[in-house]
Amino acid sequence: MRIIYSDAHERHVPKLDLVNGELGAPAEGPFRAQAVLDGVREAGVGRIEAPQDWGREYLSRIHTAAYVDFLESAWDEWAAAYGADAADALPLARVQHDMRRDRIPRSIDGKLSYFSYDIGSPIGPGTWAAALKSAHCATTAADIVAGGERAAFSLGRPGGHHAGVDYYAGYCYLAIEALAAQHLLDRGAKKVAILDVDYHHGNGPQSIFYRRGDVFYGSIHGDPSDEYPFFTGYADETGEGEGEGATLNIPLPFGTGWRAYEPALAHLTEATRRFGADALVIAMGVDTHKDDPISRFRLEVDHYPRIGAAIASLRLPTVWINGGGYDAAALKAGVPAMLAGFEGA
Amino acid sequence: MRIIYSDAHERHVPKLDLVNGELGAPAEGPFRAQAVLDGVREAGVGRIEAPQDWGREYLSRIHTAAYVDFLESAWDEWAAAYGADAADALPLARVQHDMRRDRIPRSIDGKLSYFSYDIGSPIGPGTWAAALKSAHCATTAADIVAGGERAAFSLGRPGGHHAGVDYYAGYCYLAIEALAAQHLLDRGAKKVAILDVDYHHGNGPQSIFYRRGDVFYGSIHGDPSDEYPFFTGYADETGEGEGEGATLNIPLPFGTGWRAYEPALAHLTEATRRFGADALVIAMGVDTHKDDPISRFRLEVDHYPRIGAAIASLRLPTVWINGGGYDAAALKAGVPAMLAGFEGA
Repeated sequence: MRIIYSDAHERHVPKLDLVNGELGAPAEGPFRAQAVLDGVREAGVGRIEAPQDWGREYLSRIHTAAYVDFLESAWDEWAAAYGADAADALPLARVQHDMRRDRIPRSIDGKLSYFSYDIGSPIGPGTWAAALKSAHCATTAADIVAGGERAAFSLGRPGGHHAGVDYYAGYCYLAIEALAAQHLLDRGAKKVAILDVDYHHGNGPQSIFYRRGDVFYGSIHGDPSDEYPFFTGYADETGEGEGEGATLNIPLPFGTGWRAYEPALAHLTEATRRFGADALVIAMGVDTHKDDPISRFRLEVDHYPRIGAAIASLRLPTVWINGGGYDAAALKAGVPAMLAGFEGA
Repeated sequence: MRIIYSDAHERHVPKLDLVNGELGAPAEGPFRAQAVLDGVREAGVGRIEAPQDWGREYLSRIHTAAYVDFLESAWDEWAAAYGADAADALPLARVQHDMRRDRIPRSIDGKLSYFSYDIGSPIGPGTWAAALKSAHCATTAADIVAGGERAAFSLGRPGGHHAGVDYYAGYCYLAIEALAAQHLLDRGAKKVAILDVDYHHGNGPQSIFYRRGDVFYGSIHGDPSDEYPFFTGYADETGEGEGEGATLNIPLPFGTGWRAYEPALAHLTEATRRFGADALVIAMGVDTHKDDPISRFRLEVDHYPRIGAAIASLRLPTVWINGGGYDAAALKAGVPAMLAGFEGA
């Protein structure tokens, strides 16, 4: 399986992360992609190559122009306001339900608050470049699969499944899974399914495709009653309008191990089969591992080949997209294990 | 003028505040109420007395029961999750516009995210007690005015004008100005006007009374295009339904001094006169002072008596409620100056 990777991710180095009321060392950092790179190299998963340059105009297939403009200039505006050696840009506030979303504020503080919904996604001097390359990795992998290969692996960072049409959050800036799915459609697929096996609900792709019938979004994740992103990912969210029935959420409780995960995975793949997709996009994640420092499932590395095999059983062209996982050892062992399970099935 | 004060505010001691992407020493703290107390004592504004105990049930005149329950138990739930010596409770996320507000999460992290829209309001072990006493100060002052005195001063802390029906933010937890206005109505006033001369737009009282015709909300504040709370406080927000015309926002640019403030104040008092209120609630604030560390107006202490006099010109029973101001010297001199201007006019 070809692996699409760029070292541009090393330019995105969050300095701070809010954990239990304190801004401390971030869970998210370059070590994560490095661990995956080391793992797939050692396991001999496939050739590692650079992404194509897709520019930035194509981002408008998913994102608003105002959002892309903001993301590209955010650090420069922040540095202009607070100095080039300022801390990472973080938003102060959010648009509350009884406030207005029809006006984008003028100040960088106002814009940061407008275009995000949490403070888990610092913007530093290299964030835009890294996010754009991560999107290029995902789109290149989708392009390879659209061209006839069975699968490709986008080893990009930062991730994407908490980013929406016009917002960033949860360590995610561009909706790379949605961009990959859209690229498959643009290259001829009639229906695409996004399967999200990251520990967290992928509110971004769910929201982006919630009213569309051509993209299925299915996810197994920590119950949002307890876990981020808290306000979406419940089982009764099933899509709307043309998208009715094309969203499937399987929230599972803290402490979930393989015994409960396996039937959820069978449910997810069976629903995907019924949807009748031409191609798959996998929002990966090994933050389901028992050692993950910010997550609460109890999977082990031995389970990841079984996830890969379950996905392989769908017999569809498959774009694998790197996602969550905050324990280096779990990333290094777990990601190649999942891909090996897919290829060996 | 009687002054209603409780030292319960000393139990609310925020440890951290997000400023320019860094969690540092908070702008908001007990020194603020102490500075005002010192100032009104030295100026001989009036007798200082304790608030009546109004309990907590009456908060439901403005707030939802779920919100009050949350606020009362938030610290205990946070301490149960992270330990009694944990940092102040801060929310991770917010309800985004494409997410659901119909479910209150179960975990304390989820609840904090549900019931706030920024991270400017830490919850510590004494926050609830302080907020409740601050509400009691405001209600006691309103009760004194309803009983026939021309004016009273609620020297409570924390403030209230960023708190809504079911959310806290911006150093504010309970909607003390709204509670005071409602108390005046409950004691017989037909129409009440809230005049907000704090530097920031008071999104809380605006939202609470936006569709009601019995409470006018008028405010002069930093332009939300540039300044917190960013998404409300624009001039074209004038109320809705029965409240149409009963909201007046006068946003002014960074750098505003008395030359531009004075005509805005005349506009505000003239609109209040036309509304025909029976009583006033003043959301005070001396963060309009040129030395305020987090604000951008350029008023000086000499201007505050003129604000007081302009309000006195309305010849209405008036409840003064302590609000913003983050420079100790401006608080100590400015608040008694404003009250003296009112009493001398």
